[in-house]
Amino acid sequence: MVNETQHTCSASSSSRSDGGSSSGSESSKDNSRCSTPVLDADRHERLRDKMRRRQDAGDKWFSLEFFPPRTANAAVNLISRFDRMGAGGPLFIDVTWHPAGDPGSDKETSSMIIANTAVNYCGLETILHMTCCNQTKDDITGHLQKAKRLGLKNIMALRGDPAGEEWEEEVDGFNYAVDLVKHIRNEFDDYFDICVAGYPKGHPEAESYEADLRHLKEKVFAGADFIITQLFFRPETFLKFMMDCQAIGITCPIIPGIFPIQGYHSLRQLVKLSKLEVPQEIKDVIEPIKDNDAAIRNYGVELAVSMCRELLDSGMVHGLHFYTLNREVATTEVLKRLGIWKEDPRRPLPWAVSAHPKRRVEDVRPIFWASRPKSYIYRTQEWDDFPNGRWGNSSSPAFGELKDYYLFYLKSKSPREELLKMWGEELTCEESVFEVFTCYITGEPNRNGYKVTCMPWNDDPLATETNLLKDQLEKVNRRGILTINSQPNINGKPSTDPIVGWGPSGGYVFQKAYLEFFTSSEIVTALLKVLKKYELRVNYHIVNVKGQNITNAPDLQPNAVTWGIFPGREIIQPTVVDPVSFLSWKDEAFALWIEQWAKLYEEESPSRMIIQYIHDNYYLVNLVDNDFPLENCLWQVVEDTFELLN
Amino acid sequence: MVNETQHTCSASSSSRSDGGSSSGSESSKDNSRCSTPVLDADRHERLRDKMRRRQDAGDKWFSLEFFPPRTANAAVNLISRFDRMGAGGPLFIDVTWHPAGDPGSDKETSSMIIANTAVNYCGLETILHMTCCNQTKDDITGHLQKAKRLGLKNIMALRGDPAGEEWEEEVDGFNYAVDLVKHIRNEFDDYFDICVAGYPKGHPEAESYEADLRHLKEKVFAGADFIITQLFFRPETFLKFMMDCQAIGITCPIIPGIFPIQGYHSLRQLVKLSKLEVPQEIKDVIEPIKDNDAAIRNYGVELAVSMCRELLDSGMVHGLHFYTLNREVATTEVLKRLGIWKEDPRRPLPWAVSAHPKRRVEDVRPIFWASRPKSYIYRTQEWDDFPNGRWGNSSSPAFGELKDYYLFYLKSKSPREELLKMWGEELTCEESVFEVFTCYITGEPNRNGYKVTCMPWNDDPLATETNLLKDQLEKVNRRGILTINSQPNINGKPSTDPIVGWGPSGGYVFQKAYLEFFTSSEIVTALLKVLKKYELRVNYHIVNVKGQNITNAPDLQPNAVTWGIFPGREIIQPTVVDPVSFLSWKDEAFALWIEQWAKLYEEESPSRMIIQYIHDNYYLVNLVDNDFPLENCLWQVVEDTFELLN
Repeated sequence: MVNETQHTCSASSSSRSDGGSSSGSESSKDNSRCSTPVLDADRHERLRDKMRRRQDAGDKWFSLEFFPPRTANAAVNLISRFDRMGAGGPLFIDVTWHPAGDPGSDKETSSMIIANTAVNYCGLETILHMTCCNQTKDDITGHLQKAKRLGLKNIMALRGDPAGEEWEEEVDGFNYAVDLVKHIRNEFDDYFDICVAGYPKGHPEAESYEADLRHLKEKVFAGADFIITQLFFRPETFLKFMMDCQAIGITCPIIPGIFPIQGYHSLRQLVKLSKLEVPQEIKDVIEPIKDNDAAIRNYGVELAVSMCRELLDSGMVHGLHFYTLNREVATTEVLKRLGIWKEDPRRPLPWAVSAHPKRRVEDVRPIFWASRPKSYIYRTQEWDDFPNGRWGNSSSPAFGELKDYYLFYLKSKSPREELLKMWGEELTCEESVFEVFTCYITGEPNRNGYKVTCMPWNDDPLATETNLLKDQLEKVNRRGILTINSQPNINGKPSTDPIVGWGPSGGYVFQKAYLEFFTSSEIVTALLKVLKKYELRVNYHIVNVKGQNITNAPDLQPNAVTWGIFPGREIIQPTVVDPVSFLSWKDEAFALWIEQWAKLYEEESPSRMIIQYIHDNYYLVNLVDNDFPLENCLWQVVEDTFELLN
Repeated sequence: MVNETQHTCSASSSSRSDGGSSSGSESSKDNSRCSTPVLDADRHERLRDKMRRRQDAGDKWFSLEFFPPRTANAAVNLISRFDRMGAGGPLFIDVTWHPAGDPGSDKETSSMIIANTAVNYCGLETILHMTCCNQTKDDITGHLQKAKRLGLKNIMALRGDPAGEEWEEEVDGFNYAVDLVKHIRNEFDDYFDICVAGYPKGHPEAESYEADLRHLKEKVFAGADFIITQLFFRPETFLKFMMDCQAIGITCPIIPGIFPIQGYHSLRQLVKLSKLEVPQEIKDVIEPIKDNDAAIRNYGVELAVSMCRELLDSGMVHGLHFYTLNREVATTEVLKRLGIWKEDPRRPLPWAVSAHPKRRVEDVRPIFWASRPKSYIYRTQEWDDFPNGRWGNSSSPAFGELKDYYLFYLKSKSPREELLKMWGEELTCEESVFEVFTCYITGEPNRNGYKVTCMPWNDDPLATETNLLKDQLEKVNRRGILTINSQPNINGKPSTDPIVGWGPSGGYVFQKAYLEFFTSSEIVTALLKVLKKYELRVNYHIVNVKGQNITNAPDLQPNAVTWGIFPGREIIQPTVVDPVSFLSWKDEAFALWIEQWAKLYEEESPSRMIIQYIHDNYYLVNLVDNDFPLENCLWQVVEDTFELLN
């Protein structure tokens, strides 16, 4: 919205038809009884209600603006930036709309698809920008329908830049942002939360500051829920603007847009586009250091922190909106220094919750996708119902095929060359594969001096929780028990525990010990003999790529392996070992050997044949120790197996 | 079936159309995924499958036969006998059919209604007898439809006695039991399990023993699932019969009917009806002691035990069917001495599960009806869905009105005179009511020397579990906190614990401490002040008869207060404190003051006015301590309240 052009005519203002009550079918209030009790408000409220609740509670919050990337690789990076910056707890992010970049298309770089990924795969409350000038009503409606279908719930309604120099109003077209606001309310009732742009210095094309304020009021009265402002350089600019807005009857939230200066050139470009003037006192500092990027960034951070402090201290500002320019460091630092970057690692559930409205009741997932949540979301995106409370309710979980392992949001962040360095340019035997697994666990460099920071089944370094099991994991991987997922048993730790905690405070969380690995048929034979001794205590599923399936689990019943007890709530059991889903996971887990690893090598090469051999002959095993109050016996099971083999 | 008359003609045998597979919609196999994991088989299998499973597992079992009572009072007593004898673990009970007694009617003494009560309110697998002679097809079909509607799943198909001496076959009518078997299979496919009668000595009206065996084979081939035999006096009679059956190709289970001799006259009457001959060796013992009831019963028990032992030791018998004559002592003693009376007090769930097929998934209930489960079942009998896994799923629990507090299966077992002795012929003040509550808790006699063994909210003496809280309960009741429901907190006891255990073995059970009571508005005012200190730990609901409702619970969300973790299963949370249901319970709980207590006294009498005053002015309070791993704080809450009042 940095370069949005403001309308200049005065349309008659119309107030919101439904007076702001939640009448849409996606409203959080359509059921008086909420059956998903985890940090409910954050999952179930619409954005404007979250904003209001935070304001009422005196909480300060922030939001982050991004633009769509130019290349598919940049998209992969942006998504992992979403994941990292999402951890700091933004109230929402927004994705800008560039008419020239085919923003409503299905391309991985389109605004629509980036926003879709943020909502569904990163679980972020997201506002999609949309401009209306030079577009037909049908186009706009089509974009909005698509956004709704994808689970997007918030639109930033903008006019956008006219296509040519000689722009003229179209009689029945969209000439101003207010037309778009009205159109959204007419066609979609109260489904979307609508945001509009405010200009603390007045829009550069407006006749006057006062006229621009009147235009803003029209947009709000046409149905906008809140306002985000253009950037500004002095806090008093914003505070005056806000008081002027209030004076003419604008009562909705007004969120200041903060632009931490990150470099000389980006500042110059921005100023040119937004037709703003940089105050002399800032120029005086910047000009002398214009070639020193670090110095400028440090100054930018200082300046932003002090301006934000002044805004927050005024008592009139509750949230801050950051123009990130798709960069991480400066904004994160400002937020940390302001103390509003969320340092509390607590999660509503042990896995990242998708923000699609359809998934709002989802509170159980099979443990298998713990390290591949985006793949899980992808494969279940067509489900109409999500398990709520118990897995069995989602009668027959039909998982979508995962054919495209190269979808940008499922793809490894590391390029082929890097993967080869980590996983071996040349494999000589199965043991070289064992080594890769072991290095991933220990964090030690491999024999060529490279650290193994990801695996085909896990694109991130080992989870903190898994670190608790590190020593044992190292020992077993060395010997060919190739672990891809595990959790320790937990017997009632506080829900606020920094490592294993999740859910509302005042609760207790529990886990059954879990271990999942690939291993040879020789080891499986010995393991099965050992498991006889543990028949009543350990549940197992052992399957090979052809689907041969050995288990002692009661018929097709899921086993809850993570659960929590909270004040005034029903029990939550967010992770289960589900025998039926395991067979879908098995296909994916085996395919990853080939898709992510074998294909790094030439066909017919020895390296490729080793991976192919493992894929064809190894078994995928999962073990659950049901006796969660006792010491985890799974290590003993593995130890006994090795002993039997000797 | 003691006096059933056997058919004498030979109908062509027809084998079962569907070869015994479970095709009915009520079959336990229609869902490959069972979502109610508690002792599943016992809840979900049909009777013939349970029988087969027990036989395969080498378990011995027993069943019990009852006849419908003559009076409403006798019905009340029979139902409480069902509850007591049900605790011993019969595989099923059966209820005989007496054409003269209007057996298919809605009278509380009809076979149909007694069987309905056994299934739905006592949770017993039940076989309803049905005779066919002298009845139209429409009548029979009507009875069967009604049985199905009520949730009955098993029919004992009998001919019954012809109405007059001069009985003749009707051309298109039901002349023999085999006709009824065929009719059931034709009209109801595989819905019912069908049992037929076998005669170890041959039916008295049969041409010969061999002819009778052939008739039996016809009944089995027409679709019967198993056979229960007429009584006999010598084990070898049964064993020969069984081998003869097998020799002619009868392969279904054959269950010996055992008649423990309980008295001289009942034996004589039985012998007359069944046209059996009592062996001389038995006559020789009985005749000399015929006036000594106790001696005869002792002998009968001895005889039955030794015969049953011989049958079980033969290896051919897996289950024993007892003709109880609606009496408890002799049969119970035989079963205990045989070691097949279930001494294991473990339950599938903390509450008694109804045996209606519609309720097979039910595994959550509000705690409020813990002592009035039959009232809960009655008020939810019209529900189409039962909560499965979480309470919230049963969207809006519309409880039926409990208008008739005098339904025979909801009625107090004690007559008015006895209740007056327990609860006071004359009340002088509120404190005399406190005393009644206190005596019920302590088990001490009241001031007139009578023990208080039941209360309007609880027809049985204090539960073993509640006994753990006895001292504290006594103290608070004395001071006007009139408790009607409570449970201690439990932090992971084995599911096999004799007092608080439930569910499959190998699991762990948990509870949050719960306390529910009536109390004065003065105490409530102090309590509310005290509860402020416990705001985050204790959830409360406080309501008066007019519906004024004070709570700190998150909007309408249920609080799980009992749950269990089991090997290879999802979490089970069978009891919740549900704020919505509490308002339905409140109406019932307040009404019981009037219906069961106030109405014992004359209108306008001081006693009645005291109860009426409590009803009109007291509050019903429930408290949950969410911190189940810590010491129960609810006693401290009450203590603090009393302190504040002083």
